[in-house]
Amino acid sequence: MSVESTVVKIAEAARKASIKIARCSTEKKNEALLKIAQKIENRADFLKRENEKDLIFAKEKGLTSAMIERLKITDATIKSMVTGLKNVAKLEDPVGAVTSTWKRPNNLEISKMRIPLGVIGIIYESRPNVTADAAGLCLKSGNAVILRGGSESINSNLALAGLISDALIKTGLPKEAVQVIPVRDREAVNILLKQEELVDLIIPRGGEGLIRFVVQNSDIPVLKHYKGVCHVYVDEFADIETAKNICINSKVQRPGVCNAMETMIVHENIAKDFFEVMVPAFKETGVELRGCEKTCELIDAIPATDEDFHAEYLELILAVKIVKDMEEAYEHIEEYGSLHTEVIVTKDYEKARRFVKDVDASAVMVNASTRFNDGGELGLGAEMGISTSKLHAYGPMGLTELTTTKFVVFGDGQIRQ
Amino acid sequence: MSVESTVVKIAEAARKASIKIARCSTEKKNEALLKIAQKIENRADFLKRENEKDLIFAKEKGLTSAMIERLKITDATIKSMVTGLKNVAKLEDPVGAVTSTWKRPNNLEISKMRIPLGVIGIIYESRPNVTADAAGLCLKSGNAVILRGGSESINSNLALAGLISDALIKTGLPKEAVQVIPVRDREAVNILLKQEELVDLIIPRGGEGLIRFVVQNSDIPVLKHYKGVCHVYVDEFADIETAKNICINSKVQRPGVCNAMETMIVHENIAKDFFEVMVPAFKETGVELRGCEKTCELIDAIPATDEDFHAEYLELILAVKIVKDMEEAYEHIEEYGSLHTEVIVTKDYEKARRFVKDVDASAVMVNASTRFNDGGELGLGAEMGISTSKLHAYGPMGLTELTTTKFVVFGDGQIRQ
Repeated sequence: MSVESTVVKIAEAARKASIKIARCSTEKKNEALLKIAQKIENRADFLKRENEKDLIFAKEKGLTSAMIERLKITDATIKSMVTGLKNVAKLEDPVGAVTSTWKRPNNLEISKMRIPLGVIGIIYESRPNVTADAAGLCLKSGNAVILRGGSESINSNLALAGLISDALIKTGLPKEAVQVIPVRDREAVNILLKQEELVDLIIPRGGEGLIRFVVQNSDIPVLKHYKGVCHVYVDEFADIETAKNICINSKVQRPGVCNAMETMIVHENIAKDFFEVMVPAFKETGVELRGCEKTCELIDAIPATDEDFHAEYLELILAVKIVKDMEEAYEHIEEYGSLHTEVIVTKDYEKARRFVKDVDASAVMVNASTRFNDGGELGLGAEMGISTSKLHAYGPMGLTELTTTKFVVFGDGQIRQ
Repeated sequence: MSVESTVVKIAEAARKASIKIARCSTEKKNEALLKIAQKIENRADFLKRENEKDLIFAKEKGLTSAMIERLKITDATIKSMVTGLKNVAKLEDPVGAVTSTWKRPNNLEISKMRIPLGVIGIIYESRPNVTADAAGLCLKSGNAVILRGGSESINSNLALAGLISDALIKTGLPKEAVQVIPVRDREAVNILLKQEELVDLIIPRGGEGLIRFVVQNSDIPVLKHYKGVCHVYVDEFADIETAKNICINSKVQRPGVCNAMETMIVHENIAKDFFEVMVPAFKETGVELRGCEKTCELIDAIPATDEDFHAEYLELILAVKIVKDMEEAYEHIEEYGSLHTEVIVTKDYEKARRFVKDVDASAVMVNASTRFNDGGELGLGAEMGISTSKLHAYGPMGLTELTTTKFVVFGDGQIRQ
């Protein structure tokens, strides 16, 4: 069978399965999730054996050790997939919820009811655990899912898909609700991205290159974020100790993730006092500083280029910018920000309120670490990544973001005049 | 200036203006809307003169009389634009509304706040009134808008844009908040569709050809609907008189619109009795019937082809399908429906509830005319078209659908453990 007909057949089967899974009870969906978790737990050895094939292939292909690390299914990976699925089973089912309701002068009763999106395509890179995590979230929200992992993890992904299929069949659900595309050829991605009539949403998870490729080639709506260039703005009225703690946490606690701080913006009136406390703390935690001109006049820092202010370092490097007022902070954020996470540290009520209203980002925070922009931390339960596109979902995507609403109208024979 | 640099410059100016308009007070926005309405009213003669140029060009180009009709700015068009803008000024401003709020165990207070999308691009065909209507809705929801009407209406659109600019300047708002692309070249559309970093949403309004072109060429998210193939399912437990009224209203009241009924599905147990009442009513109103095999056994109808069941006739033609149960009705809707509007007529409580849950469409109705799937009728105020894509907005798009939400986090120095 050609790559095209394979992918189209998968998408058609997913569309059919999506109708059944959309009507499925919460109990049945939870039963399936727990059965999948059990299968993964019971068949851990099998998964590791299949994963070994991918590891051998990856080494032959000369992948970096970091990539091989991500590809590897360890006991910890198994445990995290199992726990993840059990947690998703515990989350509230968004499907069928009525989000608002009102009555019209002609007595029509209108409401909006949450329904699944339909078919979701996930395109991701090495980590095989995404296969189980994404399948769990899509199933619970009543969607069918088509998974397309990296070609280097195909054996692991197909092994996981086999276990998931078994569990779905045992629960009496259509096994086509979760499918992995079984071809290495990258052409498969192109074909999937054109199935606009069959697939409702594409979520790419991976590096900026992958995501841009998907956006440029997809006829299907895409939820994505390219990168996180998050700022903490230390206002002139910041509490210095609070600012220090938030900046250290935002930069150092896990520098390699999208919600870590990349640039610190400091009001010129507090800069000297703040740096006295902050610079030693950064030195202690091994953070390299790259400062704007004014910063370099005050402290020992590498002069920052324009590129530094655009950079998502994902490591212990921080750009520092001194501004004369909040407006200049806004301008910097508008120019260099990525609509991800923006924080103000201040004791000033009016400035806090103004920042929150004026700044455009998926999460805007007062006196808290950037690291809280995360589905779990914000209380959404599990998440499917963080969207920095404004349509549909802006910020962490939980189960609710994998649904939409339809209008429901109850009448008694009303006709339009 | 090349087409490309013209379009990019417009998009960049719109992005800048969007920041200002997003922060603008409701009062200022309403003031601008009323000023625009006044300008249009006062300068009606000027608008008609500019429109005359388009009409001459259109006749030279040999456009159909229907297209010329749509293109023409009459007193009624002026009045509808003016009334529309005044109505939008009266609608509640969605921006800044907090849609939900909760507290985390660490005392972080989280909320979701409505914000404008940013920059919206509208690509539409002949009707120049869309220029004023769309500008009004985008302004009120705090967005900047780039308008690209048909090349045949360019003089009318630019004249309207000029009046809108004047009104914006007089109100102290950036005139780049509403811009019309001043080039006839279709290349302008292609270039606009690639400005993913500057434009947040594209809404195409027009025929299926235009919409498919936009979907296939846009890197920007698109809200669209291709067509409305709406069904009324007359259940075996329908009240015959109610069913008749609803079917007549759905088909006849305004056949040329997307929420008119195109296929009537009838339960076999009621078909004979129902047709006895229904067929004369359709004859009286001039509706041509095209029936499935079973239908043609019962009544005098043209045999329907598969194409008939796919058709969005937009005229007084109706396809009729007899089914043996509700499941067969579902199957028909899944196969031929367009996710627009689906109606059941029944007195049976359980079937009504089941239909509403099970059927996937932007609006699902019980005992009401399909014609109610409309922003005004559902109570959203003005509308920007009806979306049958599930992402972001499913169904009529009002002001709320031109916004998104951001997470707002209030803390007291919380850091992540």
